[in-house]
Amino acid sequence: MNKAKREGVIFVVSAPSGAGKTTLCRELIDRFADLRQSVSFTTRQARAGEVDGVDYHFVDKADFHRMVNAGQLAEWAEVHGNCYGTSLATLEQAAEQGVDLLLDIDFQGATQLKKNYRHGVFVFILPPNFAELERRLRGRDTDTDEVISKRLKNAEREISEAGWYDYLVVNDDFQTALGELSAIVTAERCRSQRNGAILTELKIKGED
Amino acid sequence: MNKAKREGVIFVVSAPSGAGKTTLCRELIDRFADLRQSVSFTTRQARAGEVDGVDYHFVDKADFHRMVNAGQLAEWAEVHGNCYGTSLATLEQAAEQGVDLLLDIDFQGATQLKKNYRHGVFVFILPPNFAELERRLRGRDTDTDEVISKRLKNAEREISEAGWYDYLVVNDDFQTALGELSAIVTAERCRSQRNGAILTELKIKGED
Repeated sequence: MNKAKREGVIFVVSAPSGAGKTTLCRELIDRFADLRQSVSFTTRQARAGEVDGVDYHFVDKADFHRMVNAGQLAEWAEVHGNCYGTSLATLEQAAEQGVDLLLDIDFQGATQLKKNYRHGVFVFILPPNFAELERRLRGRDTDTDEVISKRLKNAEREISEAGWYDYLVVNDDFQTALGELSAIVTAERCRSQRNGAILTELKIKGED
Repeated sequence: MNKAKREGVIFVVSAPSGAGKTTLCRELIDRFADLRQSVSFTTRQARAGEVDGVDYHFVDKADFHRMVNAGQLAEWAEVHGNCYGTSLATLEQAAEQGVDLLLDIDFQGATQLKKNYRHGVFVFILPPNFAELERRLRGRDTDTDEVISKRLKNAEREISEAGWYDYLVVNDDFQTALGELSAIVTAERCRSQRNGAILTELKIKGED
């Protein structure tokens, strides 16, 4: 499927906190040389070593809110006083240029994105069960009991609403989950709606 | 994805003659222990070693036409005086029981099936180009020039109409094509529409 020009695929991966999304996404990017992490816009200050346009597009608050008001963001959120968002133009250009993008965003962001950019492929990562999710959250050793309890409540709510995602991947065995996530990437690239050019090209050659 | 009960997936694979469908399907069945080849109904005589209910469901012409008239076949065709067909009940039962089926059928059969059983996952295998398709057909050394020319014409027509399939897989490098076909099987098993039970089960456990 890599010869003819095809539409790029926007993969949106979200999960309850502790389900293992970040590690899965990192490994997925490692596995697919031609899958790129989407670059978000943010109002927070660049940290040492961060490069504008690579790690984030760094913008000031006025510019960010101008983008919000102009409807240029597919999703955005404010976290600890800083704003983060994904530009619709980034997604549309990638799709048009045949570039596959990976967006690692939370449930709220994915829900917004689904409304503003229907063409994405939405994957929800699930923990095998709540006991294991709690065990993983406690294993991190970074959160208080109160925070863990809040994360579990959020997880419960998100899971009960996750039916609208295109795919569900249970992260029980990590390699199995990574295999399923990889299969979703490969399969979606073969979708005929993105590969009309292959048929047209073959047809033209057939008529020669 | 293999613990919770989910709906079975009906995979329908077709291709122009010479594109390599039969070999790909055989390897796919070898690779997935839990993917079964669908058993067709036929009016032809059982050959030595063929087992009723395993290789085919052997029925007489009267019974076959009774099934046709009762709308019990999802697709059927007459080839060299014998009738072959797939029962709708076979597909519906497999889906309900969580059994994944592979149907290796031609373009005409897939087109009929699409009308009668919309829930299938339809994959079309493509040759990399027509010169290669012709080379493969000639390499078989079984067909006359006339037959090869007819097969190429059919291929051209089928390819020009294949846009309705869910997936397109180009069989240029065999292992790549097999990898893509396998990815489609794995990914479709993760579709949330077939896995509602996972969410319900997790939700119930979460509320304990």
